[in-house]
Amino acid sequence: MGQAMTRAFLTAGHPVTVWNRTPGRADGVVAEGAKLAATPADAVESSELVIVSLTDYQAMYDIFGDATGSLGGRTLVNLSSDTPDRSRAAATWAAGHNATFLTGGVMVPAPLVGTDASYIFYSGPDLVMKRHEAALSLLGAPKYLGADPGLAQLMYQAQLTVFLTTLSGLMHATAMLGSAGMKATQALPELLLFTDSIGAIVRAGEETPGAALDAGEHPGALSTVTMMGATSDHIVETSASLGLDPALPEAVQAHYRRAIKDGHGGDNWTRIIDGIRDPR
Amino acid sequence: MGQAMTRAFLTAGHPVTVWNRTPGRADGVVAEGAKLAATPADAVESSELVIVSLTDYQAMYDIFGDATGSLGGRTLVNLSSDTPDRSRAAATWAAGHNATFLTGGVMVPAPLVGTDASYIFYSGPDLVMKRHEAALSLLGAPKYLGADPGLAQLMYQAQLTVFLTTLSGLMHATAMLGSAGMKATQALPELLLFTDSIGAIVRAGEETPGAALDAGEHPGALSTVTMMGATSDHIVETSASLGLDPALPEAVQAHYRRAIKDGHGGDNWTRIIDGIRDPR
Repeated sequence: MGQAMTRAFLTAGHPVTVWNRTPGRADGVVAEGAKLAATPADAVESSELVIVSLTDYQAMYDIFGDATGSLGGRTLVNLSSDTPDRSRAAATWAAGHNATFLTGGVMVPAPLVGTDASYIFYSGPDLVMKRHEAALSLLGAPKYLGADPGLAQLMYQAQLTVFLTTLSGLMHATAMLGSAGMKATQALPELLLFTDSIGAIVRAGEETPGAALDAGEHPGALSTVTMMGATSDHIVETSASLGLDPALPEAVQAHYRRAIKDGHGGDNWTRIIDGIRDPR
Repeated sequence: MGQAMTRAFLTAGHPVTVWNRTPGRADGVVAEGAKLAATPADAVESSELVIVSLTDYQAMYDIFGDATGSLGGRTLVNLSSDTPDRSRAAATWAAGHNATFLTGGVMVPAPLVGTDASYIFYSGPDLVMKRHEAALSLLGAPKYLGADPGLAQLMYQAQLTVFLTTLSGLMHATAMLGSAGMKATQALPELLLFTDSIGAIVRAGEETPGAALDAGEHPGALSTVTMMGATSDHIVETSASLGLDPALPEAVQAHYRRAIKDGHGGDNWTRIIDGIRDPR
């Protein structure tokens, strides 16, 4: 991800100084024009805008342990995954070192960074966002969510919830079809074709997606809790008969069972959100 | 769904006789030209091709309890959701009444039945499929999977696994964002926009999607088990701090924890399929 970001900046003629924990990892982008810093402090001191992309926020504290004295007056943008609370704590930590802080979540894989398909959620001080918007736009279209530094992280975790849940569903489904001898090269393309249509199916259910949810209404006509719940039963039963790990389909089934138990079988499937919000 | 199918046939000028358990439910399509049968036996006797679309397979046995004598020489197509084993049992049952049998799964919601977007998986005897292919094509493009009557049902359950898992992920994510005060009318469109891209992201990872899976290989470069597992940890932690039902994100997290425990942290995320196939 760091290499992809560096290349996006270099391609646009924007100077970049890089540092990586693993020696040699930056050799490629250095050959392409990036300046290599000897230490994190050197890297920070070379620019007003400092971007970090790491496995989690602890990695940022580890790296900047000896460099916090260099952060003053700069803007730190952390595009790493972690919890919203840790993003908020990091903003306080950065303020303690006289740095301004933006948190962000990159919504495309590395090969698409810097392309028209790329977009990135940000939150943090409005003015800081505006000051660096032009430079950050080189990585992808910025989507600014507000001042709360936890907001972009929460959006990132919400989006990744959909992503990881769908990926696990795809692997579970591929395993189901594999049990009948179907190759993944046949199964996965079929499953991905349908995955492509899920957004359109949900949008087709409501003129303004989310409006009924905001109103606490779940008018059911086509895909009721009862019908979707029956299918979730069939999926659990099929998975069990094939000896597959039941945990994922059982978690989905539990969403419908709860809504049925609460007397909402005739409602639209979206009613399952009540049990997610208020588990008992 | 029955109304949508009837309309697709009527629009194409194909005669249809209908019967529904709920009196009056068929009034609309009867006004549009469908013939109303007084009993299931009358409905069956009116056509060579008999299509049922119900909540599950038990509903078919309930309906045809007094009409099995009429099934001889006809083709019964059951487009209901149930387990592959129940589809296989139904084919045997149909054969016992001298009927041929196709099982199928409709991959679009009712409003799209009969449109260019519609496609339906089928399995059962090859010759029976060929004989009725023209008529069945009026409902949607047929995708024939093979002779095993459980195969189309298995494909349907696999596809619905992806669908229901993604829908539960979408509601969980909407609940996450709602906890920060974001309205569903803002959250859901953003989540659906990303959902639209999931298929493309997976395809971008491999020239022939599924080829590495078939080879039992999981070459990791971008989205490794370790990285995706770290994000699944962040999602579980975020969900817990918001008081949301942890079952769904925990089921996803367990896929990565298992792969990490088995020493596959550096592999591509697809490695999670091993634990799904062989839970311990």
